[in-house]
Amino acid sequence: MADFIDDTRDLLRRTPEVLRALLSDLPASWTETPDAPGGWRPRDVVGHLISGELADWIPRTQRILNDGTEQALDPFDRFAHEGRDDGATLEQLLDRFAELRAANLTTLDALVTEPDLDRRGMHPALGEVTLHQLLATWAVHDLDHVAQVYAGMAGSYDAEVGPWKAYLGILLRRDDPAAVPG
Amino acid sequence: MADFIDDTRDLLRRTPEVLRALLSDLPASWTETPDAPGGWRPRDVVGHLISGELADWIPRTQRILNDGTEQALDPFDRFAHEGRDDGATLEQLLDRFAELRAANLTTLDALVTEPDLDRRGMHPALGEVTLHQLLATWAVHDLDHVAQVYAGMAGSYDAEVGPWKAYLGILLRRDDPAAVPG
Repeated sequence: MADFIDDTRDLLRRTPEVLRALLSDLPASWTETPDAPGGWRPRDVVGHLISGELADWIPRTQRILNDGTEQALDPFDRFAHEGRDDGATLEQLLDRFAELRAANLTTLDALVTEPDLDRRGMHPALGEVTLHQLLATWAVHDLDHVAQVYAGMAGSYDAEVGPWKAYLGILLRRDDPAAVPG
Repeated sequence: MADFIDDTRDLLRRTPEVLRALLSDLPASWTETPDAPGGWRPRDVVGHLISGELADWIPRTQRILNDGTEQALDPFDRFAHEGRDDGATLEQLLDRFAELRAANLTTLDALVTEPDLDRRGMHPALGEVTLHQLLATWAVHDLDHVAQVYAGMAGSYDAEVGPWKAYLGILLRRDDPAAVPG
């Protein structure tokens, strides 16, 4: 993977655009259902992505570059959006995420070059990790959570599709993660 | 769901834009991995969505409006893209899908109004279905397959994330659909 930083950055810069194309001004009938019982609505997912921009990816990059493996990285609070974002509209959350992501990609450009990718840090639960792995995880974490937005949106139409649900894995898996569509 | 046609249409018009924001000019390092072993790469998914525009949603809408339940709907070939799209680039497939979707939404506007939504047809395997259910399925089918694109893209970085894979459900589920991230 010769262009790892460029390729990772290319994915990371797209996520705010993708979320806007998908969610901006979308009728509320699509956005009020969590991905699974007790799960997250699209606005919760965007809030969680905001938390990552604030407290995970760039702060951990800086810690790996500054401290190496000497001191463990701070744990990341996966639920930091709860309460914090209650007063914000989905539109405002999309804007906030886009601003933070753009600023963080500028910081990334200034902080990291190819030879840094092998630098190591100490994850509080996973042990030794590399900066390469952290940046890859930043991108895959985007993909994981945007896919979760799709599951919530699909769930909004669970009752609308009638017998076709048997063919729609994204709906079947909300009830049973191991379900296989017919 | 008072604005069912408008809300459904709003989702349907977004899918080509979302796929372009996600995939257009994306480095091939992100787009060559199927969502699961033996599954579909992003280009296969876009091909399958093209097949739906050609042979499923609008043709079936017309059949329900014209024939009701008297004659079963034609079966839909889920693998019609195989072979057909071999000579096309992902970029060309994205363009083709966007053109077909735009034309089909224009046709939808001309064909269907709210009172038609209770009209019934005969699915070849599922039995009686309504036009409401068909249009809802069109939208959820988009969500299901775009989410599949995410799984393939994530799979491209499976080896890059190192120990963080334990937290990334989108990767764990490629190996075991029932996997629960740590």
